[in-house]
Amino acid sequence: MTMQLKDLGKAVLATEYAVRGPIVARAQELEKLGREVIYCNIGNPQSLGQRPITYVRQLLALCEYPELLTAAPGVFPSDVLDTARAILEGTRHGLGAYSESRGVRFIREAVARFIEARDGAAVDPDHIYLTDGASKGVQSILKLLIASPTDGIMIPIPQYPLYSATITLYEGRIVPYGLDEADHWRLNPALLEASLAKAQAEGTRVKAICVINPGNPTGAVLDAANIAMVLEFARKHGLSVLADEVYQENIYLPGDTFVSFAKVLHDRGIKDVSLFSFHSCSKGFQGECGVRGGYFDHRNVPADVAAQILKLQSVSLCANLAGQVATYAMVNPPRPGTPSHALFQKERGGILESMKQRAVILAEGLNRIEGITCNVIAGAMYAFPRVELPPGVNDEAWCMALLEATGICVVPGSGFGQAEGTAHFRTTILPPTDKIRAVVEKLGAFHREFAARV
Amino acid sequence: MTMQLKDLGKAVLATEYAVRGPIVARAQELEKLGREVIYCNIGNPQSLGQRPITYVRQLLALCEYPELLTAAPGVFPSDVLDTARAILEGTRHGLGAYSESRGVRFIREAVARFIEARDGAAVDPDHIYLTDGASKGVQSILKLLIASPTDGIMIPIPQYPLYSATITLYEGRIVPYGLDEADHWRLNPALLEASLAKAQAEGTRVKAICVINPGNPTGAVLDAANIAMVLEFARKHGLSVLADEVYQENIYLPGDTFVSFAKVLHDRGIKDVSLFSFHSCSKGFQGECGVRGGYFDHRNVPADVAAQILKLQSVSLCANLAGQVATYAMVNPPRPGTPSHALFQKERGGILESMKQRAVILAEGLNRIEGITCNVIAGAMYAFPRVELPPGVNDEAWCMALLEATGICVVPGSGFGQAEGTAHFRTTILPPTDKIRAVVEKLGAFHREFAARV
Repeated sequence: MTMQLKDLGKAVLATEYAVRGPIVARAQELEKLGREVIYCNIGNPQSLGQRPITYVRQLLALCEYPELLTAAPGVFPSDVLDTARAILEGTRHGLGAYSESRGVRFIREAVARFIEARDGAAVDPDHIYLTDGASKGVQSILKLLIASPTDGIMIPIPQYPLYSATITLYEGRIVPYGLDEADHWRLNPALLEASLAKAQAEGTRVKAICVINPGNPTGAVLDAANIAMVLEFARKHGLSVLADEVYQENIYLPGDTFVSFAKVLHDRGIKDVSLFSFHSCSKGFQGECGVRGGYFDHRNVPADVAAQILKLQSVSLCANLAGQVATYAMVNPPRPGTPSHALFQKERGGILESMKQRAVILAEGLNRIEGITCNVIAGAMYAFPRVELPPGVNDEAWCMALLEATGICVVPGSGFGQAEGTAHFRTTILPPTDKIRAVVEKLGAFHREFAARV
Repeated sequence: MTMQLKDLGKAVLATEYAVRGPIVARAQELEKLGREVIYCNIGNPQSLGQRPITYVRQLLALCEYPELLTAAPGVFPSDVLDTARAILEGTRHGLGAYSESRGVRFIREAVARFIEARDGAAVDPDHIYLTDGASKGVQSILKLLIASPTDGIMIPIPQYPLYSATITLYEGRIVPYGLDEADHWRLNPALLEASLAKAQAEGTRVKAICVINPGNPTGAVLDAANIAMVLEFARKHGLSVLADEVYQENIYLPGDTFVSFAKVLHDRGIKDVSLFSFHSCSKGFQGECGVRGGYFDHRNVPADVAAQILKLQSVSLCANLAGQVATYAMVNPPRPGTPSHALFQKERGGILESMKQRAVILAEGLNRIEGITCNVIAGAMYAFPRVELPPGVNDEAWCMALLEATGICVVPGSGFGQAEGTAHFRTTILPPTDKIRAVVEKLGAFHREFAARV
């Protein structure tokens, strides 16, 4: 007898991942039938026409095939050749060998310099792990934290479903805390305390709180005061903090800056809260989703626990080396005065400026549709608008109808979590400007017709 | 209060991974102190001087930086340029976008053709998943299979510790079955039945059997009859089969050929055993460990279970795209008559011929040492010799003493499992020929002195 569905674990069956769920499957079917689909379901910039950063790809090509260091004169700027040579020397054996489990030390040292320049606080390169995208790092730390079925992890509502899926898969308890839609999706101490108290009353041992900043799917950007509030909350209740900071380059409003959890931890001299911070090559302006590069670093983690992290990483051998190189490129961009600097700045600026424009077009356009309201998109790559639905219709049905009618593929709010009695959807800001305008137009026409019909 | 060791789960604490354990840590310390270390602990060919296959690296460079398709005339053979163009078209968005969760379909179709040519049996490309090395695929399937703490997975003793580590981490039960050292480490039906009966008597629900062929660490190569025996055993007891076939190119004895579990399953018309087969870019003659490429395919898995596999993979988004390209290169080598064929054949032949020689030098050399016996190394990249130790000395102490005395880093047999009362170690065959000779010499001198001293 073959395997049977009933033989699978409850945790596997209960795991949900809406970003690639049934609506996306239907979109792929429609595309095969010849329909044009606009994929707004996933933060995958290069699938929607964003061009890779030349500096990143030149480094990757040179490191993959070092013969190019001398075989293709005139093709690569001199500083890129020098950087590729330095990386190859740093890896010792090139990209074809497993690295140390934490990742190539030369690259971790570059990550440490990047963090120090950003935060004004040093970090030990041995507390940095290079990972296959940020997701793998998040999953490792959740596995570490969830020790029994009554262990709980606080996650925002709405959240990125990596968190809910992984906690379910590892048989922990999801402890949801609400983000305040009326206050730009900020974290609110009263909502945090209420969430914790409710979980504890249910017998849950709350181990950690996850924060996504800038927010996915909310687009909110936290300031230092809001971050300090979260750290004090964690300290008060003995929680670890997971700071998902993969959108740290994606900040759109004048005056806003990215503030890391690590910086606030350092500035306030907090020594009694364990912090894990995650970063990725997939977002920002690189948008190198396919390379699966990223890192996490940890603070205030006792040496015996850190040894367990190293052990778990060693079972998975190491992160892919191309991803490690892309991480180096991310933390070590061309410097002013180098031959590759001007093109890099032009490409970087073009992408970020265009994202900023699209964020405005999308949010303003959505707010013009009757029955749809959307917070300002301050950061990240998404809008999470609220939509008024007729009684008896849920957000999944609405999203499916939108797809069938317009070819626009978005994800229902229920996949991210939303306040009881509300309906939302998540859309990326990533389609090119003309398509973003078309999305707004078509979505408006669809919703007017839908609201009138139902 | 920060995280504490006591907050971690028992499964995390219990997980062991000897290939990167304390002996390797000590080796790294010695190296920092200026000692020469010969790393025989891990199958990492390019770290020991093996050169990458030019075809693979040219494809990777071209796909990473497609400008090279036209910018570097004369550098790349025309067929490699054509293949890179085909891959890029197959990915649709290049290497910078997430692919489908299963991996790029164009590449899965190439894997399906490779399997069909090898086995004479077709496979649905949607039953193939491209993975970040074979390890990630193995871990996914073990996660799927282990549904409760009484679920057990049969693994060979000795085994590759990915299996024991992952089963422990996912809180299943390890069900060990012995390989018959006296019969070239083959699988023996009596040992399988005894293992299963013992586990069942202990209340274990045995779900699957893992087989590594060619064997790691044993170097054994199974024939069709031995594989058929395993499949009939699995059928009789309703087990799934995990076939770890990452060393399928590494076959050294004249007359031996690699026979896949899938081929035997097909040839015998077995429809009631679920089979998962794993392959990797890290081994064979490519030895591209750093690229983290590989795949698994499944047979006789009901559609509802297959849907769960797809869902789990989707949480991890997709395998890295460079690894997917390397997998394409593995299953689609240059054809006779193409410009890149001659160099490819020369590189491939040189590596495999040299491995075959080193396997002989190592096994014969080890057998000349009094107190050490080693089976013929028929396949894979390792020897797992037995060593006679004085009373009161275990294999870990011996390996550590070997490292301190000679700089040779091997892994104790206890990390892989061994019959009660025996001691072994695992060494790779990967150091260059002159170093392999030095390893044999030094190891012999060390053991004579060790045996006399203790």
